Amino acid sequence: MATADLLTASHTLELAAPLPLDGGQDLAGVQVAYETVGTLNADKSNAVLVFHALTMDQHIVSPHPKTGKPGWWARSVGPGNVIDTDRFFVICANVLGSCMGSTGPASLASDGQPYAMRFPVITIRDMVRAQVALLDALGIDQLHAVVGGSMGGMQALSFAANWPQRTRAALVIASTARHSAQNIAFHEVGRQAIMADPKWNGGDYYGALSNGGKGPENGLAVARMAAHITYLSEEGMHEKFGRKLQDRPDGTKGAKTFGFDADFQIESYLRHQGLSFTDRFDANSYLYITRAMDYFDLAEEHGGKLAQAFAGSNARFCLVSFDTDWLYPTAESRTIAHALNASGAAVSFVELSAPFGHDSFLLDVPALDRVIKGFLG
Amino acid sequence: MATADLLTASHTLELAAPLPLDGGQDLAGVQVAYETVGTLNADKSNAVLVFHALTMDQHIVSPHPKTGKPGWWARSVGPGNVIDTDRFFVICANVLGSCMGSTGPASLASDGQPYAMRFPVITIRDMVRAQVALLDALGIDQLHAVVGGSMGGMQALSFAANWPQRTRAALVIASTARHSAQNIAFHEVGRQAIMADPKWNGGDYYGALSNGGKGPENGLAVARMAAHITYLSEEGMHEKFGRKLQDRPDGTKGAKTFGFDADFQIESYLRHQGLSFTDRFDANSYLYITRAMDYFDLAEEHGGKLAQAFAGSNARFCLVSFDTDWLYPTAESRTIAHALNASGAAVSFVELSAPFGHDSFLLDVPALDRVIKGFLG
Repeated sequence: MATADLLTASHTLELAAPLPLDGGQDLAGVQVAYETVGTLNADKSNAVLVFHALTMDQHIVSPHPKTGKPGWWARSVGPGNVIDTDRFFVICANVLGSCMGSTGPASLASDGQPYAMRFPVITIRDMVRAQVALLDALGIDQLHAVVGGSMGGMQALSFAANWPQRTRAALVIASTARHSAQNIAFHEVGRQAIMADPKWNGGDYYGALSNGGKGPENGLAVARMAAHITYLSEEGMHEKFGRKLQDRPDGTKGAKTFGFDADFQIESYLRHQGLSFTDRFDANSYLYITRAMDYFDLAEEHGGKLAQAFAGSNARFCLVSFDTDWLYPTAESRTIAHALNASGAAVSFVELSAPFGHDSFLLDVPALDRVIKGFLG
Repeated sequence: MATADLLTASHTLELAAPLPLDGGQDLAGVQVAYETVGTLNADKSNAVLVFHALTMDQHIVSPHPKTGKPGWWARSVGPGNVIDTDRFFVICANVLGSCMGSTGPASLASDGQPYAMRFPVITIRDMVRAQVALLDALGIDQLHAVVGGSMGGMQALSFAANWPQRTRAALVIASTARHSAQNIAFHEVGRQAIMADPKWNGGDYYGALSNGGKGPENGLAVARMAAHITYLSEEGMHEKFGRKLQDRPDGTKGAKTFGFDADFQIESYLRHQGLSFTDRFDANSYLYITRAMDYFDLAEEHGGKLAQAFAGSNARFCLVSFDTDWLYPTAESRTIAHALNASGAAVSFVELSAPFGHDSFLLDVPALDRVIKGFLG
């Protein structure tokens, strides 16, 4: 990874102008934290903008500063890799509303205090708008491609629909053009879990944190646990965990304890997922980003017709779904493909078989690698 | 309902002997609250024992004492009804561990204080054992049938497997012979939500409640919300709610508020489900009963072979699943049917089409009515 590291750089841009938001406000002093990998060519034609998912960030290749884990897409982005940074200049920006350097509810407002719940509710299009401003600042008129999985796919769709001249291609993986009632329901459970935590305190917990106290970690962990179930397939969970019992730290073989410890491995796994998440993520950001996803409805933005959303685009599209993804099942991608067909766009659509459910877009799925490589050309 | 009311009676039995539990303890002073509908005939051959699901109770026909709502199966049980109380004597007992009159964590232990988390972890078989003791007390040697949906179905299976001579028939609706990793995962989210609530206080909140204070209502509401999603089908949720917005109490038409109110009807619905649940259910009971369900593995109890579980039974079996039930999907019932076939039992199995997901077993599904009526004879 030495070569990749040399080509990887972290930046933060403060937008020169206030960012107009779908909610009607103009947000001043917006910071956009982003990572670039590779080299922008002379005519600035080789840039690929990768949008991250709900709980990820700009650290697409570089290790996460809090966990030390490899960048979330280090397996796919790099020299000679599926997204080949010997050829492409890859940009990944922390989304507006998040907590890894871009402006969000934990950022300081003009009064010097964290926004907390004074932060405006944002949309997926607002997130994209901030990244278009980043492209403007970088002097990149047109991207080689936009790429994104899950919420990243929503941003890719929003980008292609609302800034159709700014990209020649859009790759949308395991995503949807609008959140279903069930999607909203799971997010609402997570939000209520956070808000039910007394340490959430109406969103004002940053003071407690800076004094060594705690925020709504318990609520956030429960939110993460509920969401995590939706990221895995029932089959994958059965294969990996089934009803296997957890061995004890003292070496005791797994057994039913007739108590409320994590007897089953799946319980232990979920608890770990919940707890480790709270070390790296801000609870208010979780509220705002899930809200943006729930509000997302690309057709609604365009007169109720999804095909209309893509009317101005000449981009090539590629849609990928996974057969075991029940969060954004194949039918969601098919709906987008039909709309793109109706709008006369160049679109390819493939459902891949992979056992990992929604998380497949982040994992070792060779067929996905081939699709990405083939589509980016 | 006047006739039904005359034939409906509430009782509480205190078991004469301590109840031996799968966890190894003997539980003294167990109370079993139960409702009967209809008249037991002279040779005591017309009794039907109906087992209730996780959050229900003995009020199968009579109005719920806290909510005033009709009994949970009043639509199916009554004179001339699908389970015809002109012919059958229907018994429904609150399960051990619950909170509607049968002994559970809110009951007083021998020291005069509520058990709280001192209550022993129980199993589905323990719940059934308490109800077998009830049959003994009523002098009923053999039932016409046992009937149950969801967790009630688990009890029906456990009854038929472990007390094979005590029933001539078993009707198991929308159930499973063991909890899957995904089932356990959803329950674990609910338990963690309750335990994360500071008002849970290690289970010791009954004192606060009796002083007009609060228990872990917020955590319990979140648990209920998460579980409720699994009771509905994605399609049903889409049909009923989709992305419809909630009208405001002041009459304002639904609109995105760019805030965290319940903008979407599905949010409002879930919040209501969560809140109303806390008025009628004890959080510790929720912990204990979900644990019992997670521990349930009928094959494991019988040498790892499900067919072996039914080796001693001459009962007729009927299994019903619903095509939109993703909590206990048809494959779970099919597994039971195969085991019953392997054990040489008389078994019929039908997958019904209904849009309501897991909750179909409680709702207006005429095909289910016909199956129940036909099977009970």
